[in-house]
Amino acid sequence: MYTQQYGQSFRKHLRAILLSTRYVTRVRLVAPPARCFDSSHFPGLWRAMSPTMVEHNSLDIMCLNKYCNSSSSSSSSENDKKIWTKLKLNLAEDYPRKNAEILSGQYGTNVLMIGAALMLALAHHSPSVKEDHLLSFITSLMILQLVWMLWYMLVRSRHRNTRTEKDVHATTCWIRGGLTLLALLSMIMDVFRIGYYVGYQSCVSAVLGVYPVIHASHTIAQVHFLWFHIKDVIKSFETFERFGVIHAVFTNLLLWSNGVMSEAEHFLNNHKRRLSALGYGNLTIVHTEPLCNCTTSTCAMFSSSLYYLYPFNIEYHIFVSAMLFVMWKNIGRTIDLSSNQKRLATKTQGLTLGPILGLVALASTIGILVVYITHVEGSVQTRRSAISMFYIYGIVMLVFMCSACASGLLIYRADHIPPDTSKNPSRQLDTELLFGSSIGSWFMSWCSIIAVLGASSSPPYRWTNLTYSLLVVLEKCIQNLFIIESLYRRQDDAGRGDPELVASPEIFSVTSSLSKPYNGIFTRAYDTPDRACVAMETEQQESGQVYKCPRKPSEVPVPFGTQVVNTPNIKRQILKNISVFLIMCNISLWILPAFGCRPQYENGLEQEAFGFSIWTTTLNFAVPLNLFYRMHSVASLFEVFRRI
Amino acid sequence: MYTQQYGQSFRKHLRAILLSTRYVTRVRLVAPPARCFDSSHFPGLWRAMSPTMVEHNSLDIMCLNKYCNSSSSSSSSENDKKIWTKLKLNLAEDYPRKNAEILSGQYGTNVLMIGAALMLALAHHSPSVKEDHLLSFITSLMILQLVWMLWYMLVRSRHRNTRTEKDVHATTCWIRGGLTLLALLSMIMDVFRIGYYVGYQSCVSAVLGVYPVIHASHTIAQVHFLWFHIKDVIKSFETFERFGVIHAVFTNLLLWSNGVMSEAEHFLNNHKRRLSALGYGNLTIVHTEPLCNCTTSTCAMFSSSLYYLYPFNIEYHIFVSAMLFVMWKNIGRTIDLSSNQKRLATKTQGLTLGPILGLVALASTIGILVVYITHVEGSVQTRRSAISMFYIYGIVMLVFMCSACASGLLIYRADHIPPDTSKNPSRQLDTELLFGSSIGSWFMSWCSIIAVLGASSSPPYRWTNLTYSLLVVLEKCIQNLFIIESLYRRQDDAGRGDPELVASPEIFSVTSSLSKPYNGIFTRAYDTPDRACVAMETEQQESGQVYKCPRKPSEVPVPFGTQVVNTPNIKRQILKNISVFLIMCNISLWILPAFGCRPQYENGLEQEAFGFSIWTTTLNFAVPLNLFYRMHSVASLFEVFRRI
Repeated sequence: MYTQQYGQSFRKHLRAILLSTRYVTRVRLVAPPARCFDSSHFPGLWRAMSPTMVEHNSLDIMCLNKYCNSSSSSSSSENDKKIWTKLKLNLAEDYPRKNAEILSGQYGTNVLMIGAALMLALAHHSPSVKEDHLLSFITSLMILQLVWMLWYMLVRSRHRNTRTEKDVHATTCWIRGGLTLLALLSMIMDVFRIGYYVGYQSCVSAVLGVYPVIHASHTIAQVHFLWFHIKDVIKSFETFERFGVIHAVFTNLLLWSNGVMSEAEHFLNNHKRRLSALGYGNLTIVHTEPLCNCTTSTCAMFSSSLYYLYPFNIEYHIFVSAMLFVMWKNIGRTIDLSSNQKRLATKTQGLTLGPILGLVALASTIGILVVYITHVEGSVQTRRSAISMFYIYGIVMLVFMCSACASGLLIYRADHIPPDTSKNPSRQLDTELLFGSSIGSWFMSWCSIIAVLGASSSPPYRWTNLTYSLLVVLEKCIQNLFIIESLYRRQDDAGRGDPELVASPEIFSVTSSLSKPYNGIFTRAYDTPDRACVAMETEQQESGQVYKCPRKPSEVPVPFGTQVVNTPNIKRQILKNISVFLIMCNISLWILPAFGCRPQYENGLEQEAFGFSIWTTTLNFAVPLNLFYRMHSVASLFEVFRRI
Repeated sequence: MYTQQYGQSFRKHLRAILLSTRYVTRVRLVAPPARCFDSSHFPGLWRAMSPTMVEHNSLDIMCLNKYCNSSSSSSSSENDKKIWTKLKLNLAEDYPRKNAEILSGQYGTNVLMIGAALMLALAHHSPSVKEDHLLSFITSLMILQLVWMLWYMLVRSRHRNTRTEKDVHATTCWIRGGLTLLALLSMIMDVFRIGYYVGYQSCVSAVLGVYPVIHASHTIAQVHFLWFHIKDVIKSFETFERFGVIHAVFTNLLLWSNGVMSEAEHFLNNHKRRLSALGYGNLTIVHTEPLCNCTTSTCAMFSSSLYYLYPFNIEYHIFVSAMLFVMWKNIGRTIDLSSNQKRLATKTQGLTLGPILGLVALASTIGILVVYITHVEGSVQTRRSAISMFYIYGIVMLVFMCSACASGLLIYRADHIPPDTSKNPSRQLDTELLFGSSIGSWFMSWCSIIAVLGASSSPPYRWTNLTYSLLVVLEKCIQNLFIIESLYRRQDDAGRGDPELVASPEIFSVTSSLSKPYNGIFTRAYDTPDRACVAMETEQQESGQVYKCPRKPSEVPVPFGTQVVNTPNIKRQILKNISVFLIMCNISLWILPAFGCRPQYENGLEQEAFGFSIWTTTLNFAVPLNLFYRMHSVASLFEVFRRI
């Protein structure tokens, strides 16, 4: 039975090959070796082959030679020599893609591991490892990346004539704009660092002065790279470039980890100071102040301002590394030109409720932040009320966000559009990052829930903490579903016109008794821009999967009533409002922990259940992930907003 | 230019569709709505369509009805009603695949997070969370999985007539055999646990008795499931089954984490006891012994034997969860029948040096293990010599392994075969797991390197530790490359006959001036089992990628000299020997840490640099990953051995 099936499908392929002349010229056949396939017997065939032969690399010709020679030489020494020559030639040839991927991935991971090990030693305040060591390691990585980026830009500017393929999905203008802003703030940080170094110049290591200078030039070069090269699909020096890009990815990841660590340490020291002031005591605070006095008057200002800029610096590096990772994934990829067209125009009509509610959320968040930070430093009573306030505010926010996401999902269920399954590494990464970064927050929430359920004391915020934590889990689940479904929905000009009519899939099966008029429709369909869709369908048929295509609006008859045309616009407007509202809410929930509103440190319930060191370790891992999750959601939701 | 290209490729598709009758019966066309496409005009077409229409779900007919009705009804209330009916129908319909994946993934992750939070609270010996809580949580998960597995098996046995698709790559007989063995050892553990419970029945919670009983039945049912259902490609009740499978995956992951935690705690307590005996003191050992006396004489035996069985139980659960994850990935997948055939026959001819060297390695490992475990309990001097011995032994092993992998890679470079790019979730997962589990070990090694470089004391094993750690990093990198390249090499019957001749790719381009005799070869090629390869080539041509196919040996003329035929066999034999040797070495490197030979705890250098708590936390994370890496390498290398 299998044999028969194969036979049929191959006869089909054969026919396709033999009929289409253009196709035949591109087919490469596996030919018998030169000796049994004497070229003199088929002079016409050889002549026809020769133009294409020239295009192939030297390997093929070498292989042919090998077979031609093998009959004349049979001594083992010559054979040995041949094997060595072949090995040398094979080694000189381009390295297999999969291996290059694994090798470069391993290189990057190990670079990160070295950095992480150094940071771990620093966290222990080990006498053998100093901050200088870590900073010089990071500085040298940055210099290496700078050299690579300059080389890359030089090569590209030299070959300006040859068109470089671009992956339009790799990034958008507004993401790059946002990153430029973050980069500017990072550079202000560098200026503060240089100022700090100048003040303490006499007693601190020179690395503390070199690091910000290199970081600033690294930032400038990287922003330039982001604007002009991040979408490139690299096709030359693939293996080398792969190492360059992955080096850039992991350098940024390391800079991110370093930022996260410094920020966590700063926060933890503040927390310990506060606990000591409240009389909990027995917590050692390690001071890393230099041993001499500052020569300028602004040192204290520099070091305290630094911490307000950390959140931006952290987000900058993690975003850049995600974008570079997409570039790495794209190396050597063949871009499907039909799906590589973005037709997005941000339309803002009908946006009222979403932005208004979002602005209310944002304003109240800033209020809550100010009240929380001032109250949490006060007495036990004001601290407790501040924490309670935070949880109640959080519950209200999350309930609104959950209902917004749920209604979005309901609209999608009502408005059945087949998923877009075209290859898109950027979207794939977005999905994985959303999912992966949720884990930190989920883990934190479940810890809180267990702590609340098993708590012996009962502070006023005990049950609001439970509700808040449950809602955090639920909200992330629903929001992920909403964002991912939005990103995977087919986005089409036709769909923009009238999704209600166009999107409903109707499946007809065409048997061999295809009648004449239908055939006409068929051919007409091939002349429309939607033919890519039909082709995709036929391909998917081969693999057994069926996705339905939307029809061109021109083929759809205009209905008599107008109400059918209006509903989809209402739906789209609702979806647009939902996404704007969610963007604002996610920004709010990013602002709070980024600027020090972390009740998980203060409420004491989790600390009681898990102990100080385990719980702070958990938070040091979960809070940065959560911050990244919120920022990443904002970026994804903005993409959703533009797609709807 | 693009338009022209599209036009041509679509004409090609169109011809393929119109010519192949079998193809046409499967094509689904996007048809105009019913109103403009009156069925009465094409009675023949409708009659031809009707048999296939019956097969489709109700949605299509519903959609058609909608269009038929929309002209007769235009009042807004009726329209509202229609929208609601449609929404209801859409909700009842099968949930989109991507959403079901995300939703079930989120469910599973959260189950694991709850378990992890409970374990973290247990690790702190929190008064509110007891072992009973964790065990009852895991027990209820196991019961749920049992119910699902029974339901699944019942449904499958009822529909015995309908053939279930199988993914042959999902697992192999010998993996299942190995898992059955591990499951048996796990069940002995359950017997020990029951014995322990019976002895302390009066003063321990009933959960400690229920847990092993449920675990034993869970193990039996799961092994049965592994043998008869793990390869199934689920196509009915997809969303429900997806939740069932992911529940099983995460239940096993949780059982693995629980095993790892118990084992690490036991090891840490032993280590602390040893340190206290040496006078380091100041380390609190938490005893979790029951408060009453054992009623039987074998309680102590039961509890001490348990820890020798833990490594097997741990490996059992992680392997099962990986296999179930592949099953989850396969849900709703359309298996490509041409690549879904395994023609593997383990040939053992020419195996001499590999097994001999491997056995020597294994034997010396067991010797080292015994000497290490007896010496490390002794005085400082014997302890130091035991650690030195371990490192020297490790360096010798790793140098041999590195050279074996490197020569394997060199052979691959000399023997250029195009990669196999067919879809295979099992292989994809293997690759990711190898890479992911290496991270633990890499991190541990870099920590050791930093500790050694910054150490103030200089024990005799300082520089051997450095060399050993560097070699661990290097060996994992090379071994990963070797295994992944082996798994991605095209494995073919033809390749087995004579790879030297068959594998060398020669590329000929066939132009339209195809002469008669060549055409004959062409057609003959389609009758061979290699035609899948040709078909793949044509498909790859479309996407712009070119992979070359090996030729059938029958088409290759036998050369005059025999040395050409012999070399590939020698190459294959070398590769086979290498993989057997590596299998034995990886088993050796698994045995050592699994049974308590962990010099990273004992040598003191890392502890000095990172502190006791940070370093033990790092080891608790890295050692289980390393153990999994070794076991997983063994499984992958065995697969490599069978493919060569």
